[in-house]
Amino acid sequence: MNNPLHFITLSNALTAVEALATVAFALSGLVLAARKQLDAVGVCVVAGLAAFGGGTLRDILLDRRPFFWVAHAGWLWALLVMCLGAMLFMRKHHVALTQRAMQWPDAIGLGLFTASGTQIALEAGSPAFVAVLMGMMTAVFGGVLRDIVCNEIPSAFHDHQPYAVCAFVGGWVLVGSHLMGWPQWLSLLLGAGVATALRALAMLLQLRLPSWQNSLH
Amino acid sequence: MNNPLHFITLSNALTAVEALATVAFALSGLVLAARKQLDAVGVCVVAGLAAFGGGTLRDILLDRRPFFWVAHAGWLWALLVMCLGAMLFMRKHHVALTQRAMQWPDAIGLGLFTASGTQIALEAGSPAFVAVLMGMMTAVFGGVLRDIVCNEIPSAFHDHQPYAVCAFVGGWVLVGSHLMGWPQWLSLLLGAGVATALRALAMLLQLRLPSWQNSLH
Amino acid sequence: MNNPLHFITLSNALTAVEALATVAFALSGLVLAARKQLDAVGVCVVAGLAAFGGGTLRDILLDRRPFFWVAHAGWLWALLVMCLGAMLFMRKHHVALTQRAMQWPDAIGLGLFTASGTQIALEAGSPAFVAVLMGMMTAVFGGVLRDIVCNEIPSAFHDHQPYAVCAFVGGWVLVGSHLMGWPQWLSLLLGAGVATALRALAMLLQLRLPSWQNSLH
Repeated sequence: MNNPLHFITLSNALTAVEALATVAFALSGLVLAARKQLDAVGVCVVAGLAAFGGGTLRDILLDRRPFFWVAHAGWLWALLVMCLGAMLFMRKHHVALTQRAMQWPDAIGLGLFTASGTQIALEAGSPAFVAVLMGMMTAVFGGVLRDIVCNEIPSAFHDHQPYAVCAFVGGWVLVGSHLMGWPQWLSLLLGAGVATALRALAMLLQLRLPSWQNSLH
Repeated sequence: MNNPLHFITLSNALTAVEALATVAFALSGLVLAARKQLDAVGVCVVAGLAAFGGGTLRDILLDRRPFFWVAHAGWLWALLVMCLGAMLFMRKHHVALTQRAMQWPDAIGLGLFTASGTQIALEAGSPAFVAVLMGMMTAVFGGVLRDIVCNEIPSAFHDHQPYAVCAFVGGWVLVGSHLMGWPQWLSLLLGAGVATALRALAMLLQLRLPSWQNSLH
Repeated sequence: MNNPLHFITLSNALTAVEALATVAFALSGLVLAARKQLDAVGVCVVAGLAAFGGGTLRDILLDRRPFFWVAHAGWLWALLVMCLGAMLFMRKHHVALTQRAMQWPDAIGLGLFTASGTQIALEAGSPAFVAVLMGMMTAVFGGVLRDIVCNEIPSAFHDHQPYAVCAFVGGWVLVGSHLMGWPQWLSLLLGAGVATALRALAMLLQLRLPSWQNSLH
């Protein structure tokens, strides 16, 4: 309280990180929609699904209302402007650039969405495993819905890159910290940090998930 | 009240229009199921999704019960009879005929479903943008679910024809009229009328949505 | 009460049958995920959808909580172990073996899930047709979600084998028995028995659903 400016700056920084992560998720939808040559409606819907689909599915399963995008409808305007802007100004080489530039905000989003989803499920009284699943779903199922609508097998289930697995581990770290009685801010930080760090490690070392032990076809 | 017959006739006419619009949506599912050579179960499910899927998804998001097809289970029998009848009697040239004949009832359905969906969301306390989205979803997402189940990219996201956009504009007209304090019947009429008129215009003039400014592949 | 041992044995037998049916459903997801060469995450999600997706969708539509897999989170561990074990130890010829061996537990699951789903919907106050649909959905839509995620037209809508139809008839038998005022255990037994028997008959006689009366393409 001695330094309100400092507090405001930290809070603003957090909001900016969250916004950046949400934009990264939305851009993953935009890039896929561009690849599939969807029209303006499809671009907006797919980008919106990628950004908000995971949290919305979690809230339906937990029977929570209002959804994030209902409580903060301003985000819908931002999404609309972003999508139409991209359709006007995005060039072919921008798509590749966007994908590369968004890898890191996406890894941060994976951690943030996992931690917030797991925490919300714990508060709703879910058992540990279910809370971890809800965190994973928050982080991963936006992309899953994006891919299903674009008629692809979801890359999270198919590309053998550790992604949902990082969320899974991060969720368990959060739950473990919660069970130890550690303060909530620490649990959230640990869960998000571990998920993001694992994802970053997986990208840097190009780790792959184990395959089926032998080809089945 | 002086002329109850007149009232009954108007009400009957409205019910008939609604029924026709629902049938048009169901037939769009039936036609796609026929193309994909689905079996009797698939035909009924896809026709049902096309007719009731949009409103059901809206009600799940708004946490409303009962669904239309639970409150009016008679519609399910009508759908079943229609689908089995079509499988028995529909010939190849009927499919093309059906598609052409259903374009106009479908445009009416677009308006009606948009207006009712937007109004329901407003009454549930949704912010303006969310109410418009819910109206659009009511009108469009039956077809989206139909296409996803049939393993196609939803035509509403892909065919560059103004469809969801007409619902979007009609929804905003309804919300605007609501904010002006105009009576509900007028808001509903304006919203539905604008959405249907725009759709009719788009069909007559063969308008297309703007594409990506340059090919990305 | 004179013979508690007998009661315990019967109850254990029922639990074992239910578990076997759930495993059969999960294995159908596992086999498809293997075919599609999904990674470990995809295998677990698709097996989980096949096992629990139908009941979860029914509960969302009926607005019931908690879901089966939230109330019995131990099943999630079992699923995880089963999926990882299969990825380690399953060989190509095991897949074909599994599919054949699971046909009969799957038919039992069809009956059990139909009966429990229909009963739950009746208790929630659904009209007869809706209750039957909910029972069918419980039994069939796990497989539908499994196929949609794997980017296939759902086999339940496409392969012309009587499957959902058996559930449909079984559901009506349960509802009919319920309307006759017969005891609940008898209604459940009749509904599950008829659905399973019809499915077994369809497999033994290799029955097929009627096709469209003429090719449409």
